[in-house]
Amino acid sequence: MREKMNRNFSEWYNDIIEKAEILDIRYPVKGLYVWFPYGFKVRKYVLDVIRELLDKTGHQEALFPLLIPEHEFAKEAQHIKGFEDEVFWVTHGGREPLNVKLALRPTSETAIYPMFLVWVRSHADLPIKIYQIVNVFRYETKHTRPLIRLREITTFKEAHTVHESMESAEAQIEEAIQIYKNFFDELGVPYSVIRRPDWDKFPGAVYTMAFDTIFPDGRTLQIGTVHNLGQNFAKTFNIKFEDSEGNQQYAYQTCYGISDRVIAALLVTHGDDHGLCIPPKVAPIQCVIIPIWYKNKKDEVDREVVKLKEELKDLRVHVDDRDIRPGSKYFDWEIKGVPLRIELGPKDIEEGKVTVVRRDTMERTTISRENVKESVKRILASITDNLKARAWDEFKKKIYEATSLENARKIIKEGRGVVRLGWCGDEACGKIIEDEIDADFLGIVDEKKDGVCLGCGRTSRNMIQVGRSY
Amino acid sequence: MREKMNRNFSEWYNDIIEKAEILDIRYPVKGLYVWFPYGFKVRKYVLDVIRELLDKTGHQEALFPLLIPEHEFAKEAQHIKGFEDEVFWVTHGGREPLNVKLALRPTSETAIYPMFLVWVRSHADLPIKIYQIVNVFRYETKHTRPLIRLREITTFKEAHTVHESMESAEAQIEEAIQIYKNFFDELGVPYSVIRRPDWDKFPGAVYTMAFDTIFPDGRTLQIGTVHNLGQNFAKTFNIKFEDSEGNQQYAYQTCYGISDRVIAALLVTHGDDHGLCIPPKVAPIQCVIIPIWYKNKKDEVDREVVKLKEELKDLRVHVDDRDIRPGSKYFDWEIKGVPLRIELGPKDIEEGKVTVVRRDTMERTTISRENVKESVKRILASITDNLKARAWDEFKKKIYEATSLENARKIIKEGRGVVRLGWCGDEACGKIIEDEIDADFLGIVDEKKDGVCLGCGRTSRNMIQVGRSY
Repeated sequence: MREKMNRNFSEWYNDIIEKAEILDIRYPVKGLYVWFPYGFKVRKYVLDVIRELLDKTGHQEALFPLLIPEHEFAKEAQHIKGFEDEVFWVTHGGREPLNVKLALRPTSETAIYPMFLVWVRSHADLPIKIYQIVNVFRYETKHTRPLIRLREITTFKEAHTVHESMESAEAQIEEAIQIYKNFFDELGVPYSVIRRPDWDKFPGAVYTMAFDTIFPDGRTLQIGTVHNLGQNFAKTFNIKFEDSEGNQQYAYQTCYGISDRVIAALLVTHGDDHGLCIPPKVAPIQCVIIPIWYKNKKDEVDREVVKLKEELKDLRVHVDDRDIRPGSKYFDWEIKGVPLRIELGPKDIEEGKVTVVRRDTMERTTISRENVKESVKRILASITDNLKARAWDEFKKKIYEATSLENARKIIKEGRGVVRLGWCGDEACGKIIEDEIDADFLGIVDEKKDGVCLGCGRTSRNMIQVGRSY
Repeated sequence: MREKMNRNFSEWYNDIIEKAEILDIRYPVKGLYVWFPYGFKVRKYVLDVIRELLDKTGHQEALFPLLIPEHEFAKEAQHIKGFEDEVFWVTHGGREPLNVKLALRPTSETAIYPMFLVWVRSHADLPIKIYQIVNVFRYETKHTRPLIRLREITTFKEAHTVHESMESAEAQIEEAIQIYKNFFDELGVPYSVIRRPDWDKFPGAVYTMAFDTIFPDGRTLQIGTVHNLGQNFAKTFNIKFEDSEGNQQYAYQTCYGISDRVIAALLVTHGDDHGLCIPPKVAPIQCVIIPIWYKNKKDEVDREVVKLKEELKDLRVHVDDRDIRPGSKYFDWEIKGVPLRIELGPKDIEEGKVTVVRRDTMERTTISRENVKESVKRILASITDNLKARAWDEFKKKIYEATSLENARKIIKEGRGVVRLGWCGDEACGKIIEDEIDADFLGIVDEKKDGVCLGCGRTSRNMIQVGRSY
């Protein structure tokens, strides 16, 4: 069911984003899109999942301004260097030029850390664990793509933490990785956790851990990042605390983020040639009921549909009573990825059954009208499990171990996925590997594995992942 | 309990915004503020209320881009005239000037209506009722003030609707007014519904209805507006539909919005010299439990507190187990406006009671430990009712009927509130009234009332409201 999708992924993607009413791509500025109400609901349920995970691990939601004055934005040398080419600048208010140029946040370290300067006083204030969900801006000059490469990232969840020691910051990195694992597991989106090489870490970080998934065309998509900032920003923004012995010390910080790309990954991971298949947890409609009207039985069917809907009221149920053929309705809801369809006609009523069609397998069965709620919940749970298992199966098939650079190059050129290989740790070898394979050095996936560096032939203790990334 | 507040309202306000941890006002750009986690939660619960009201009346939430290209923004002549002095402009991406300047939305008509152009085809598509909750920007040159006059309005709920007839648009205006009435009633915030004069309507609207509340200093705050746009924008943006007879017609539109000011009104309406008093519906903490520890009874008290918290788990309950004196805890939660405090000590346990203190009246009583959940819910409901009734009482006392311009001028000068008086309908008389009273012509509150125009002495059929507005 993924033939068309695999053959021309880009076409499938652009098509489905619009047809399933996720985003309208016709907004008159490059790289900016409009969330349709249906897409907005998917976004809402996805955000509910991450909010719950963050809240229950002691993170507090806050909200910081969008506009960052140039002098704050430029404080951290690596950071400004990393972002200066992609920042939008506000230079005028009304008809007057501003005294101080204002950056549209591309990320909020430089908006938040001046506040940490005033918030952090003593070790008793630590740790601080806050997050916000905001829009951020990047002046992308490359080809833009809905949810993937945007000029306005409409959904940027960024968490920022402050700690009294590197150990505490490290523990926070572990917690953040676990939160994101749980998050992607809830969405059934498979991932590798990868330590980015030094030359590709977040500007200003000590190191960066990333979550990458793999798309049907074999390219990888970074869907989450976790950064240990050490004391780098604390020193720049002068964030100090008094430790238990009364000494002033620079704080340790971490930050971690996810974006609209999570939703791209969700849609692509479970989609197929018929359209989307949205996991029940985040589906705007978990179950659509289609009345099958026959001549003089319409009223009877409608009465039964009302009863059925009432019984299923704990779920997000929609009755499609449009005056069009059932087949057209099936088609629409398959595109939109509603996980379960229930058809209810005179024959079903007579037999005390309902007909159900799972979106993941397109399997059509009948279930007893009695205990329909429990049956539907069981099927939805089974869909959730199946989507996740299937996605991981497919994901694993796209990860290859390369025995030579040539072999790796071939796998990647054919769009089959990513390759893993040994690396000694030298940047020079990293560049050789990138050049020879003609792909991106994504980073270390396993620090302990023995092997041979394919760049120089020396012994390697790093297993790295290489692929073409979005 | 509102002596200090009434004596120096501005001081009270700035103080409480920071001390109750609503907003941090120390962000290094004028007119931009940071939502503390506590304030953010108030905002969240307030937004839950408006979302519920909009969703159940068939509005759909969507999300449109922040950046509006200059050519779209400037299309509607009245609209651009109304906003051109207060728009922030993005002129650069990276180090390059942009080809097309981009406005930071001050409101989203010009971002949304180009999409309505492609969405609206036939009368069958109508009505469209969408809303979004976003940040908008105004280059305020006047004195800025948290939640009231901002450069980044962080919370702007704007609804936009499209209709096939003026009647349908009028009905929508009625629905919108009712939604806002319900909303402010839920928050216990009193209001007048006022038709703004033509010279003060929304730029591009046929007419504007506004919700004004009155602050302790007698000044009014506009907390919501509802605009009938007629066909003005439809003609500019070429939004046409095919009617049931196959003719192309321009659509009719309305829009209505509320902002951060709603939260200012909420805090001010119920606050007093001790701090905030947040209505239970939107209180981040509805009930705070303070354990009263006595020497060797600490464990016993703690065990009972755990049980009590469990029994109250349907509510938003917080146990303050900080190692400080109970009095300091009372003080903190009074500032933050937690509606109900429960104190629980050995004596209470012994007597099978708990001590409760209502924030609205500061009344201290004991209630039986049995059925504590029902009792607490009853008290919270009583607090809700009392807050609302008290607020309306106070509000009504601030509305005067003026018998002369001199009399009106005196009332307003003394900061006692607003005045109502007759007006013939001529703009010239309106200006005379404004000048003579030295206040703002807020608009018509009652279209049918007979009277005498205080501008010219002729008969008037309009009762207007005049006051000093924020």
